[in-house]
Amino acid sequence: MKKIAVILAGCGVYDGSEIHEAVLTLLALDRAGAEAICFAPDIDQHHVINHRTGEQMNETRNVLTESARICRGAISNLASIDASVFDGLIIPGGFGAAKNLCNYAFKGAECQVNDQVVAAVQSFHKAGKPIGFLCIAPVIAAKLLGYEGVELTIGSDAATAADIEAMGAKHVQASVEQAIVSPGTKIVSTPAYMLGPNIGAVAKGIEALVNKVVELA
Amino acid sequence: MKKIAVILAGCGVYDGSEIHEAVLTLLALDRAGAEAICFAPDIDQHHVINHRTGEQMNETRNVLTESARICRGAISNLASIDASVFDGLIIPGGFGAAKNLCNYAFKGAECQVNDQVVAAVQSFHKAGKPIGFLCIAPVIAAKLLGYEGVELTIGSDAATAADIEAMGAKHVQASVEQAIVSPGTKIVSTPAYMLGPNIGAVAKGIEALVNKVVELA
Repeated sequence: MKKIAVILAGCGVYDGSEIHEAVLTLLALDRAGAEAICFAPDIDQHHVINHRTGEQMNETRNVLTESARICRGAISNLASIDASVFDGLIIPGGFGAAKNLCNYAFKGAECQVNDQVVAAVQSFHKAGKPIGFLCIAPVIAAKLLGYEGVELTIGSDAATAADIEAMGAKHVQASVEQAIVSPGTKIVSTPAYMLGPNIGAVAKGIEALVNKVVELA
Repeated sequence: MKKIAVILAGCGVYDGSEIHEAVLTLLALDRAGAEAICFAPDIDQHHVINHRTGEQMNETRNVLTESARICRGAISNLASIDASVFDGLIIPGGFGAAKNLCNYAFKGAECQVNDQVVAAVQSFHKAGKPIGFLCIAPVIAAKLLGYEGVELTIGSDAATAADIEAMGAKHVQASVEQAIVSPGTKIVSTPAYMLGPNIGAVAKGIEALVNKVVELA
């Protein structure tokens, strides 16, 4: 059974991992006969957003602790991830990917990526293991692997596509049901809720990405 | 397009709605061609559980605000639900169903159900509209509709089955992939994570339940 690591970024689209994307990733991995093992960094969230109102709440929440909600408690500290025992890696989207795993939401193409996320992505990539990036998470791939001219998709959003190209990567347009493999690499991406428009369409793209990651693993 | 109301109970298996069950309900409704509209009561959670450690946290969270994370903000106050504009109702499981929507987790067969949940279940039932209960949520059906001898399943857990019978309902054993319709009614139940053991198996039972609710709607 192939073992695929999943990096979560909190629990909720506006300040953490997009919940549908994370759950659909776990579902597709199970259906593909792969084992999912979840990780998250043990850091404070950038902030906490009230998902009813969109307003910031005067609270502090921990990314690892909140991510545990998505995987029923079965989660490990990202500091402990060891690429050698896994066959692939997937990073779902949601603002948490752009606020907690990196600061793209605030710095755009000038963003920095969390050190543990850098180490994880680079170790899987150097080991020739597939990595899947959903939704906004491809900006992390652009920042870390843009120098290789990797091809990525976030769907069709012009501003984000321009940022991805500014970081050295190539953006390719795709539909929500597509998963794009960067030629000559094992880097896979799908637009998910960067395009939407509904959970059924997003599920198809995530299933395509997961199946491709498992196939390449 | 049939409109199905979904009542959430927070965001996370130990103190709110079981996230996989809620998301898989939304996915199955979309795939069945139905529209999902989410509701939750505007009340404090019974408590907040750290999902890594299982320990209680010294925090207060609101059921409606946290539930909004599961549906990307598209949620309404349960106080405003009007059965006449919907074709059916579904209540996912997780401890939130037994701690926030009722107090079964603490009182067993002597539990009380939240007034707004009582009103919602009774209004859909009296209007002859289908209601689906997942996981532990059938205890709510047992409490409110047990006097009719309704048939329910929570899988095979003996203690919970005994409580369901103590409330006047009949418990029937079922596998995780089954959805049970109580004879002569439109009350549907499936064990979900009361049995598990994994997201793929749970998804099959939830899809069966959702398809049955939509068919009966």
